[in-house]
Amino acid sequence: MSSDVKNSISKNFNLAQRMEEINSFLVVDFITRAKTLEEQGKSIINLAVGEPDFPTPEPLIKAAIIALENNQIKYTPSLGGSVLREELAGWYRTRYEVDIDPNRVAVTSGSTAALVLVMGVILSPGDEVLMADPGYPCNRNIVRAMEGRTISVPVGPDTSYQLTAELIKKNWTQNTVAALVASPSNPTGTLVSDRELRLMHKVVQGFGGSLIVDEIYHGLTFGIDAKSALNFTENVFVINSFSKYFGMTGWRLGWAVAPKPFIPELEKLAQNLYISNSDIAQQAALAAFRPETIAIAEKNRAEYEKQKNYLLPRLREMGFIIPVDPQGAFYIYADCSNFTNDSYRFCVEILETVGVAIAPGADFGEFRAKHHVRFSYPKPIKVLSEGLERLEKFLKS
Amino acid sequence: MSSDVKNSISKNFNLAQRMEEINSFLVVDFITRAKTLEEQGKSIINLAVGEPDFPTPEPLIKAAIIALENNQIKYTPSLGGSVLREELAGWYRTRYEVDIDPNRVAVTSGSTAALVLVMGVILSPGDEVLMADPGYPCNRNIVRAMEGRTISVPVGPDTSYQLTAELIKKNWTQNTVAALVASPSNPTGTLVSDRELRLMHKVVQGFGGSLIVDEIYHGLTFGIDAKSALNFTENVFVINSFSKYFGMTGWRLGWAVAPKPFIPELEKLAQNLYISNSDIAQQAALAAFRPETIAIAEKNRAEYEKQKNYLLPRLREMGFIIPVDPQGAFYIYADCSNFTNDSYRFCVEILETVGVAIAPGADFGEFRAKHHVRFSYPKPIKVLSEGLERLEKFLKS
Repeated sequence: MSSDVKNSISKNFNLAQRMEEINSFLVVDFITRAKTLEEQGKSIINLAVGEPDFPTPEPLIKAAIIALENNQIKYTPSLGGSVLREELAGWYRTRYEVDIDPNRVAVTSGSTAALVLVMGVILSPGDEVLMADPGYPCNRNIVRAMEGRTISVPVGPDTSYQLTAELIKKNWTQNTVAALVASPSNPTGTLVSDRELRLMHKVVQGFGGSLIVDEIYHGLTFGIDAKSALNFTENVFVINSFSKYFGMTGWRLGWAVAPKPFIPELEKLAQNLYISNSDIAQQAALAAFRPETIAIAEKNRAEYEKQKNYLLPRLREMGFIIPVDPQGAFYIYADCSNFTNDSYRFCVEILETVGVAIAPGADFGEFRAKHHVRFSYPKPIKVLSEGLERLEKFLKS
Repeated sequence: MSSDVKNSISKNFNLAQRMEEINSFLVVDFITRAKTLEEQGKSIINLAVGEPDFPTPEPLIKAAIIALENNQIKYTPSLGGSVLREELAGWYRTRYEVDIDPNRVAVTSGSTAALVLVMGVILSPGDEVLMADPGYPCNRNIVRAMEGRTISVPVGPDTSYQLTAELIKKNWTQNTVAALVASPSNPTGTLVSDRELRLMHKVVQGFGGSLIVDEIYHGLTFGIDAKSALNFTENVFVINSFSKYFGMTGWRLGWAVAPKPFIPELEKLAQNLYISNSDIAQQAALAAFRPETIAIAEKNRAEYEKQKNYLLPRLREMGFIIPVDPQGAFYIYADCSNFTNDSYRFCVEILETVGVAIAPGADFGEFRAKHHVRFSYPKPIKVLSEGLERLEKFLKS
């Protein structure tokens, strides 16, 4: 924020303390700049935005059109309609072979709302949450919004860029109340092993804390069907979303599965902070678990895998260091220290000179952030190929 | 919360302090109970839920269907698409004859999100916000969620159940940073006069604080076209919604107009707490300002006025005390002290014996709450008539 703006605020109004510590995403600046360049007639390859390239699967669109034709788009219960909650429980039964009481499922306005609600019901001011650095930037800002404190634990290739039971033990203090794990991770696409997840759960339980597992990219894994944390415990907050696997980004619908005693608390907070989720999104999502939708989602997943298999070796050949193969999501987190010590500037130069948008490491934390960039690759191979050619040109210049 | 549940939480997990002070809405219990009774075959007249009885206007439905057929439902900028922000600025120009920079409009996931974001960017822990008691219950819970404190100022018929400049002056402390005014008010349907609003603004500015004006029920006024606070100042947060006047409750779309220096702050927080609003709702809302949509909204408003004119004198005849004629929204806040000193129990008995659901005063604050109930009346006259007959039967029994 410019000092002019700051002065203008402080002269007339109060600004909340939290806003000094909540950052905007650098990637948004890159996407905005990319759009401006496009409007100026430049050709841009956008590998910055974390959004599936495919449209929403047709069965969901059809269900939404029927809902619109019925024109009954009204407030729904704050934790979602009961039929959708049952469908989600059914999804855990068929996909993960685990029985979940539908009353433990909280449908939310995107997984972001699920995280806001979970943090809202567990964090008092000053309470600490452990999470991996690098990690998804909203998470620490949501913790800050709720007056908690994020303890960023630096992680690297040795732990597949994930927290471990050991790291949790080492970093837990008397103020820590929770640990947040994302598997597959954004930005690294790496998974936590079942074994390590169980160990982490045991450690967190031992401290009397809460384990939160972000499973937003579940379904989008390659050569492995990741288990849910719900496969081995009820004492966990699991966060998930219709945005990625089901291709519903712009609809704003996600969910949390929570330990039963927390459901009335989540409901209370959801009533006040959201009133209701999008009814049209919920009516569409009722078609998410039909075989014809899953067939489309699986076809898309196969495409992401092809794209990853295309991009990964080529980036390595080019000199990017990617020590751990991503196993899911649609991201590659690449060490660019062969080319630069300032990944932000590196990203700016790549965008300005050859028109390829990628995200700088600084969006995902501080640990070795200046030596990393994130490629978001859900694009047709020919687009990726063009992006690689341009990158090569840039690196050779 | 039962003590069993509390024990179960504290044994295994932490519960945030805020959750001890955030309440669920009693009206939800009444709506749930009403549904159960209906499922048991009982006939219920629901005057509890604060939702328009009319469906979403057809032009919005059609716009949404076209958007679905195009199947480009994606993340949008966090403060809304630029075209919708311009349309909203245009709405202020045509409806209020005031020029608003479109960049000062923040499109949000319902007016609830607008309030969360505004409170999020102005409140530090312990900061106080003045608001009227009775008032809309979410407001104080949102303040609590953001670690602020609500100072509830008892208001009665003498000030049309509204804050005044005098009351703000009297209740402002060194910890106060904002005053929140709702006009028309939920639950009372009363307005703040232009003159009083200007005076309040002057007082709040004098203290160096922020004035927040909830204009969610704007458009739904009777015999008067309420001015916006934006008609006389840029230094105000105005909250509004597509839910009520435009009949889009289940779509989750609202907006705030903010002082310019706060827009980057609201954007930062929106990026983190919401990522994006519902794209389908935004694409639908682009049809909100067309003459054919406004014609439908105005027709509905005329119906609400007829319903109010039907209900108000009859409730008075029956013995309910309603000292100030409501001038907007679709609520009547009635003093029921001729019948009871416990409006909660009164509401329970009415629901259980004659099947009419109304909301107890306790949902809207503490001041004389036990002597008040709220009627939410957007229902066909014949439904209201049946409700009145049943009420009469109850009161005579």
